[in-house]
Amino acid sequence: MHGASDILLSLFTVFLGARVGEEIAQRLRMPGVVGEIAAGAILGPSLLGWLHPGEVLDAFAEIGVVFLLFAVGLETRLVDLKRVGLIAFMVGTLGVIVPFAGASGWAHLEGFAWNKAMFIAAAFVATSAGITARVLQEMHALQRREAHVILGAAVIDDILAMLLLGIVVSMQDSGVTDPWHLLVVVIEAAGFVLVVGWVGTRVARRRSGWLERPRMSMSVLSIVLALCLGLAWLSTRFGLAAIIGAFLAGLIASETEQREQLEHHMKPLLTLLTPFFFVMTGVKLDASVFLKPAALSMLAIATLIAVVTKLLGAYLGALKLGQRSALAVGMGMVPRGEVGVVVASLGLAAGVFTSEMYAVIVAMSLLTSILTPPLLGMLLRRAHQPEDGDRPGAARDSVR
Amino acid sequence: MHGASDILLSLFTVFLGARVGEEIAQRLRMPGVVGEIAAGAILGPSLLGWLHPGEVLDAFAEIGVVFLLFAVGLETRLVDLKRVGLIAFMVGTLGVIVPFAGASGWAHLEGFAWNKAMFIAAAFVATSAGITARVLQEMHALQRREAHVILGAAVIDDILAMLLLGIVVSMQDSGVTDPWHLLVVVIEAAGFVLVVGWVGTRVARRRSGWLERPRMSMSVLSIVLALCLGLAWLSTRFGLAAIIGAFLAGLIASETEQREQLEHHMKPLLTLLTPFFFVMTGVKLDASVFLKPAALSMLAIATLIAVVTKLLGAYLGALKLGQRSALAVGMGMVPRGEVGVVVASLGLAAGVFTSEMYAVIVAMSLLTSILTPPLLGMLLRRAHQPEDGDRPGAARDSVR
Repeated sequence: MHGASDILLSLFTVFLGARVGEEIAQRLRMPGVVGEIAAGAILGPSLLGWLHPGEVLDAFAEIGVVFLLFAVGLETRLVDLKRVGLIAFMVGTLGVIVPFAGASGWAHLEGFAWNKAMFIAAAFVATSAGITARVLQEMHALQRREAHVILGAAVIDDILAMLLLGIVVSMQDSGVTDPWHLLVVVIEAAGFVLVVGWVGTRVARRRSGWLERPRMSMSVLSIVLALCLGLAWLSTRFGLAAIIGAFLAGLIASETEQREQLEHHMKPLLTLLTPFFFVMTGVKLDASVFLKPAALSMLAIATLIAVVTKLLGAYLGALKLGQRSALAVGMGMVPRGEVGVVVASLGLAAGVFTSEMYAVIVAMSLLTSILTPPLLGMLLRRAHQPEDGDRPGAARDSVR
Repeated sequence: MHGASDILLSLFTVFLGARVGEEIAQRLRMPGVVGEIAAGAILGPSLLGWLHPGEVLDAFAEIGVVFLLFAVGLETRLVDLKRVGLIAFMVGTLGVIVPFAGASGWAHLEGFAWNKAMFIAAAFVATSAGITARVLQEMHALQRREAHVILGAAVIDDILAMLLLGIVVSMQDSGVTDPWHLLVVVIEAAGFVLVVGWVGTRVARRRSGWLERPRMSMSVLSIVLALCLGLAWLSTRFGLAAIIGAFLAGLIASETEQREQLEHHMKPLLTLLTPFFFVMTGVKLDASVFLKPAALSMLAIATLIAVVTKLLGAYLGALKLGQRSALAVGMGMVPRGEVGVVVASLGLAAGVFTSEMYAVIVAMSLLTSILTPPLLGMLLRRAHQPEDGDRPGAARDSVR
């Protein structure tokens, strides 16, 4: 992709495709994001071939999901996250352990040695919160308790997944893990999240008047966007996903006095940029996997394991919220998105994954993202209604 | 530049640099855009080397200037452009002829044959309206008559420059120009501008209610942004700059009922994206030209010719507005920006430009952009004041 003309055509195609897809999805009473992913799958190399993954579109996609998680953080109060802290911790932890165990067993049965099977299983672990965040936002559900649990758990999940990836990678080379190094890495990441979150929100609460002192135009938005980009980058330096840093930046901004003004200003930015993330998710789906029967059945099993184990682990962690809400939380944790793709790429480069397994894992990661929006939409609507035989307090809490 | 982490760091660096640069410029009572270009020059390869031109940053820069010209179009009414139509035509035409003649003569004196000298001169012709548009916007001068003349003239200038480039390129190969082909190209481009502008504004005036009928979120902004990207791309297909199409899209959107809402929504988008264009303008400045005395003196002369000829041509075209306003219009037409760079690249590829001439033309194009904001700012302030011995009506008109 070269030259201003080609780049403009790609951007135009992605944006128009996303908007048409969203419109169709809305009219079919599905979350708009379903239409955006479908538009990507149709426009991508597997079908029409009008769009291809590339550096520029990937960068727009990255910024899109970074700003989305920033906006989600902006609509989230730290106090709400703290209130569900224990449940979120349980959801994050069980939502890592169960998929890891299940996928390790499956990969071993498929003929991989245990150390390789565990590398493959690492691709089943990390939740990618982008899709879920978008569905929650579209359904105006970000203030519900399920949303707070999912967002808190996504942060914990990311830290644990990084730990796990560190362990399995080190198991490939020498069989010897340096536990001290891994411990340091995890403590650094957890420390980054805690220190930035704690200091940032305190400073924001007390000193938000400073945001209006510079003479530049739109100083509040400018400073906060710089914070978002800066923390997104910094979190990648600590081994975490960029969206974790963006979410932290949003949490910090949500404690400022200018919060509502910022929410208002973020809307046009999200309108322009988030479609790139979801359309490119669809573009990256390689439909050729579906044409080989052997790979197709492997993909079906892998996707089933990915969905069921994550759902089960997170559901068990969230049971305190009541069964229906726990189910919604579990479904919200299902998408693996680009994290699974990254692990699979590492595995392919390390010679651990076969090319067939790589294609399956990539397709599985994308399928979990594609399956989530319609199912999560349904479950969130159901969780809204009070249920018989369940703790009514939890159900009421979830409908604030 | 690879990987999400590096891209985020680049975007963060550009954005933060732009904002710090703007803040410093504002405090020194200069247009903010001066600070953004200076930030790019400091962060770029010539000095710190933290930023480099690349596909991703160039794409963000392109989108930034496209949206800027869209927003400028949004603040411009077609009726205002029509009112200054004749003056704008004179400014556009004389602003092409005088620089072309002056630069051809200079390049011939530098030892180039006439056909090559005219190719070089083509790089002196096309005005790049981005910088001027930004200064006009920052100074809240978009409703002044000078602004309408500049914007109208920029469209005419772009069509004529394309014609001229077609002529000089064809003069290199065979010495034979196919006048029919050139005529068709120019008629197509002029037809594109007239048809899109005329049909688009009529439809927008009568049917803007339709923008609110889709169910998607932010439907008005979405449709209009798609129009902007689509017309920007389409105008490159007609040989025009992308910003011409974006400006037309803005003109169309400015006739809708939702105009004020759109202006409001564009602000955060401009805050995020326009800095990329101006910072990258600074990044691309190759300071090594300034280290060779021979090239430096050549650059000084080329820049002087570029500024004086454009200023003179456009000034003569705009004299009806009064001397001070005509001077402001002339200065507003001075920046060549990326158009000069594109012509120089073509010339280098065609073997017409020496590498020294290429470096000089690129640096000249950027220098004209860098010189414009402070001088234009000064002239616009002066043109605001009534002048003795000049037609008072014109001066009053320009202060609406």
